[in-house]
Amino acid sequence: MNRTGLAGIIKKKQSFLCVGLDTDINKIPEHLKELDDPLFEFNKAIIDSTKDYAVAYKLNMAFYEIMGSKGWISLEKTIKYLKDTGGLFTIADAKRGDIGNSAKYYAKAFFEVLGFDAVTVNPYMGFDTVAPFLEYNDKFTILLGLTSNKGSSDFQMLKCGDKYLYEDVITKSSGWAGPDQIMYVVGATQPEIIAKARNLVPGNFFLVPGVGAQGGDLASVCAAGLNEQCGLLVNASRSIIYASTGGNFAEKAREAARNMQQQMENEFKNRSFI
Amino acid sequence: MNRTGLAGIIKKKQSFLCVGLDTDINKIPEHLKELDDPLFEFNKAIIDSTKDYAVAYKLNMAFYEIMGSKGWISLEKTIKYLKDTGGLFTIADAKRGDIGNSAKYYAKAFFEVLGFDAVTVNPYMGFDTVAPFLEYNDKFTILLGLTSNKGSSDFQMLKCGDKYLYEDVITKSSGWAGPDQIMYVVGATQPEIIAKARNLVPGNFFLVPGVGAQGGDLASVCAAGLNEQCGLLVNASRSIIYASTGGNFAEKAREAARNMQQQMENEFKNRSFI
Repeated sequence: MNRTGLAGIIKKKQSFLCVGLDTDINKIPEHLKELDDPLFEFNKAIIDSTKDYAVAYKLNMAFYEIMGSKGWISLEKTIKYLKDTGGLFTIADAKRGDIGNSAKYYAKAFFEVLGFDAVTVNPYMGFDTVAPFLEYNDKFTILLGLTSNKGSSDFQMLKCGDKYLYEDVITKSSGWAGPDQIMYVVGATQPEIIAKARNLVPGNFFLVPGVGAQGGDLASVCAAGLNEQCGLLVNASRSIIYASTGGNFAEKAREAARNMQQQMENEFKNRSFI
Repeated sequence: MNRTGLAGIIKKKQSFLCVGLDTDINKIPEHLKELDDPLFEFNKAIIDSTKDYAVAYKLNMAFYEIMGSKGWISLEKTIKYLKDTGGLFTIADAKRGDIGNSAKYYAKAFFEVLGFDAVTVNPYMGFDTVAPFLEYNDKFTILLGLTSNKGSSDFQMLKCGDKYLYEDVITKSSGWAGPDQIMYVVGATQPEIIAKARNLVPGNFFLVPGVGAQGGDLASVCAAGLNEQCGLLVNASRSIIYASTGGNFAEKAREAARNMQQQMENEFKNRSFI
């Protein structure tokens, strides 16, 4: 799915919600654990129950890798299910970053073999680590801009000359490819940073984690980051997928997703440009 | 295997060679491709033929992930084979970097589930992305210091205040844990950088890629980086594992590994301190 397609489903659903499938074997309902592939069964139920309100799904690789090759099978089944469902933007939250053939193979693994629309990439090693992902001009490379964790102050917020490092990362990388190919991860907990990043790259989509469980506020994120195509994908994981840990988890996830979608629709209405 | 154990096998084998199992399905001998698990069969043959001359094996995740869940099975079988063989230091070249539970789960996946001795980690997101790895105090976290690719100049070589970014990464992170827990990736193509890094952290091991195929020179690396415990793991991948692509690949890999071990033994002799 390209940028026009993504903007289309955002407008149609009046939502820019991304559901984070950080599916933790220790947190899913007991009755699913007896099944052959608990992670996939959980994901399937969450996708079915939230797809009316979400435009994107983000799979965090850590939660699958910890399950070994079985986890990778759950991952393969989930991305296939998302693609078969159709009309959903799919993100591999892998934060990969390597050089040469390694980078090329990571790009191929996520874009071709698994078939995601987008993958998160760590830009710290420089252009040649990102270039192999950019060769897929119908896919999105989501670069870490400024993350929402405390440790982001260690390096991303270092002053390098007249810029912070994260500003240099965003400015430099925006010359590598346009908004049809690059998105940025920008944390929700510091809306003033979202505004600064929006100023640097008016047209790019931002993937914004940290709303909900991590304390970010949707209205502030919208005020700082919305652009004419929306330009935001706000991710919520725990607050949706673990809204209940009981037998009604899917129903409660649907309610939580609908609640966020309605807040998003209101943000659009307040601005009347989408 | 801890630092004393690693120093012990280095002394015994008079080698600090790390063989990079960047096992590429497109490059392995034809006759292996017909087997049930070509990647594992190739790795097994390479390990058997080079283990007298190598102290460490590094598995680059990209080459396994591109094969999907089957690749993850090859990975699981290879690490098990390395551990069963015994006396070998094992590195997952994963360059992971994430926060919170994701970081915790990546650490658990590589250190506990798979059982590697060490994993490469991208420090760009700051301390809290590295901390979960450091909780395993009998394991090594190998942080990207200065990599050997051209793009390392984009960000790692930025001047941030009076230091280059990579210097700040090394200095700051060396306060997070000592040389028993942290190693650094420092590329071989710029020996003057190895010398600078050695000056910053005299006691830490460096994992040095880029000797051989990427053009780095072993003597210069040794002059710049050796310390009293050796302090170096020099990685060679293609120059060893693809020394021949024919039926004699294992024999040729053994020759290439022995050749490097002999150069390493000579470097030790020239200094007579190990």
